[in-house]
Amino acid sequence: MPRFEQNLRIPGPTALPPTVMAAGGRQMINHRGPEFAALMERIVRRMRPFFGTRADIVLLTAAGTGALEAAVVNVLSPGDRVLAVTVGAFGDRFAKVAEVYGADVRRLEVEWGRAASAAGVRAALRQEPNARAVLLTHNETSTGVTNPIPELAAAIREVAADALILVDAISALGAVPFSMDDWGLDLVVTGSQKAWMSAPGMAFAAVGERAWAAMETARMPRFYFDLRRARESALTGQTPWTPAVAVLYQVDEGLRLMEEETPAGVFLRHAACAAATRAGLQALGFSLLADPAHASQTVTAAWVPEDLDWNPFNGEVKRRGLVLAGGQGKLKGRIFRVGHLGSVEIEEILGAIAVMEEASLRLGRVVEPGAAVAAAQRAAIAVLAAPGADVTGAIGAVAAGTPT
Amino acid sequence: MPRFEQNLRIPGPTALPPTVMAAGGRQMINHRGPEFAALMERIVRRMRPFFGTRADIVLLTAAGTGALEAAVVNVLSPGDRVLAVTVGAFGDRFAKVAEVYGADVRRLEVEWGRAASAAGVRAALRQEPNARAVLLTHNETSTGVTNPIPELAAAIREVAADALILVDAISALGAVPFSMDDWGLDLVVTGSQKAWMSAPGMAFAAVGERAWAAMETARMPRFYFDLRRARESALTGQTPWTPAVAVLYQVDEGLRLMEEETPAGVFLRHAACAAATRAGLQALGFSLLADPAHASQTVTAAWVPEDLDWNPFNGEVKRRGLVLAGGQGKLKGRIFRVGHLGSVEIEEILGAIAVMEEASLRLGRVVEPGAAVAAAQRAAIAVLAAPGADVTGAIGAVAAGTPT
Repeated sequence: MPRFEQNLRIPGPTALPPTVMAAGGRQMINHRGPEFAALMERIVRRMRPFFGTRADIVLLTAAGTGALEAAVVNVLSPGDRVLAVTVGAFGDRFAKVAEVYGADVRRLEVEWGRAASAAGVRAALRQEPNARAVLLTHNETSTGVTNPIPELAAAIREVAADALILVDAISALGAVPFSMDDWGLDLVVTGSQKAWMSAPGMAFAAVGERAWAAMETARMPRFYFDLRRARESALTGQTPWTPAVAVLYQVDEGLRLMEEETPAGVFLRHAACAAATRAGLQALGFSLLADPAHASQTVTAAWVPEDLDWNPFNGEVKRRGLVLAGGQGKLKGRIFRVGHLGSVEIEEILGAIAVMEEASLRLGRVVEPGAAVAAAQRAAIAVLAAPGADVTGAIGAVAAGTPT
Repeated sequence: MPRFEQNLRIPGPTALPPTVMAAGGRQMINHRGPEFAALMERIVRRMRPFFGTRADIVLLTAAGTGALEAAVVNVLSPGDRVLAVTVGAFGDRFAKVAEVYGADVRRLEVEWGRAASAAGVRAALRQEPNARAVLLTHNETSTGVTNPIPELAAAIREVAADALILVDAISALGAVPFSMDDWGLDLVVTGSQKAWMSAPGMAFAAVGERAWAAMETARMPRFYFDLRRARESALTGQTPWTPAVAVLYQVDEGLRLMEEETPAGVFLRHAACAAATRAGLQALGFSLLADPAHASQTVTAAWVPEDLDWNPFNGEVKRRGLVLAGGQGKLKGRIFRVGHLGSVEIEEILGAIAVMEEASLRLGRVVEPGAAVAAAQRAAIAVLAAPGADVTGAIGAVAAGTPT
């Protein structure tokens, strides 16, 4: 891959476009001064359309998991009944956070690789009519599945109108269409190192009116992640604690690039890269984990086939500059994952497929040379040529910023 | 100041040396791969001598306040009696964190500008013989006072041998000698944006055996800041949640520079810059807040004099590229603060003093032109010429890295 030393195909941290990378190398400023206030204002303003919300967006200096904790501890009290809809390792994590802080968590566990269904959520919630909150994962990074959030949210509102809907949108928000307000979500979190094309270290929480209201009575302890302190500091263009300033420089630049590309362009590029990844992997003989109806646009998980050992395969691809992610939780060693979010472009996916083909051949697997990249490219073109898609915009170095 | 656009004289974030700045602009890597494990190992190894400990040093993706929370919630249970020794706004914050999580906090409040005394701590602890922990601030950033930690720790051990000693060392560790093990401290935290000359976003907690043991029974809820998870992940060269990788690139480079300068050189440079700051401010007619016996080597607070309004003065110095910090908490508007930590050098202090002189004259204050910078330079030289001090090493661009 000419753009980068490595073809970093993990589902975050994602590779930084050149101008985003450069932004990380800027000098510090006073985080209590006017330059910082302007930076924060720009970030929130440009992030808003991707959340699809007019709600407050709060900055948190933390990994995404910190934002999950913030979502839980600000709106809930110990003993509150919570329905955790979990379709993988990150759904389990969200549930665990609520349990650790004393919530009475009931799990709706969906088979890994499948999405939650409105019918399933409706049935589970009928058993828990007093649920104070429902925890949803937008995009399950461990399995490469995207839940149908609008359908799930509608089902929740139907059965338990007052339940708060808290959404882990860390690993796909910004890469796919999202409408927090239209879908009636109460609290949605994301992280800088995913679709935002920046280094890790900052998380963002969009907080709706019902969530703010819930904080008035919520009794779980919170200090560092206290969202009301963050809202109060935001009134003067600050964060309550010293923020990861350099990461925010990058998010600011990443959002500038995303605005330039337009949200529709960003979404189309992700759809094309995802289609190419799935087609390429299948042409290489890998079975995909995710239900095709809910396959993620940002990460694809494939089964390690019986005729292949993961470690030597991973060693071969690494030597060729391709960095893949292994399986998590109960799928460790049984699947591998390919990230295609953030600054990803078609040529990087083609490169990844080509490397996996070489590695497969080297390890004695039978694959037809060239077939996989051809299949990947065809799949990408099919997405880009669909009615309404702008082919010109989505191929090329759009996300990498103006070439120097 | 030729090195930087601004003379950033706030007590953190501190200005980044050029090579540290550049490190922030590097490409992402897999945070679950061998490069990251090596990075983490180097950071912990090089940080260890500055903590003065052989204990585990744990990485946390958070501002310093997150590390204060980690210190509290990992070793304490709701209802535990805690003595919080507070000499300013950050001592109050540490106490507040413990209260929010349900500790039964007793405060030993010391007048702002003064340090805590061994006698005071001894007397307070005699009233609380069952205290489970004592919270100490090493360097109180809001007042520019450094507490005599070894004396305080000895007093604590004398009266309450089993109390855990938790230390907020955020704003001076790395800039002054520190001996966690010799002083018998149990948990010590710091942050990347202070003496470590890096962007904010990472905190570090050194955790002693007694603190690890306390976690076995501590019942305050914790997930994101769970230190035992961090220790477990560290066994495989990882952090439990995605770390602020770019900040760690910078800390790694900052520590390389600090190792090159030697700890003694770093400490001497801070002592000289602190002496210069105090002498220069006094020559400009500013009274200092801190008791001279406990004046901080990293930040100096001065009273806003009656013949000066803070806002116009701050406006004048800002126009000249000098960024000062205002007062915090009950001293807001009544004091201002000059940071001199991290990559600070004598010439930056002289520049700051010169700008404050110009601004003073512009606002009609009577000062003798040139007297303050002369006094500052004399004070620096006196420190550097003291027996055992290496004059050559401490003046010049040591902390800025090899000139390019």
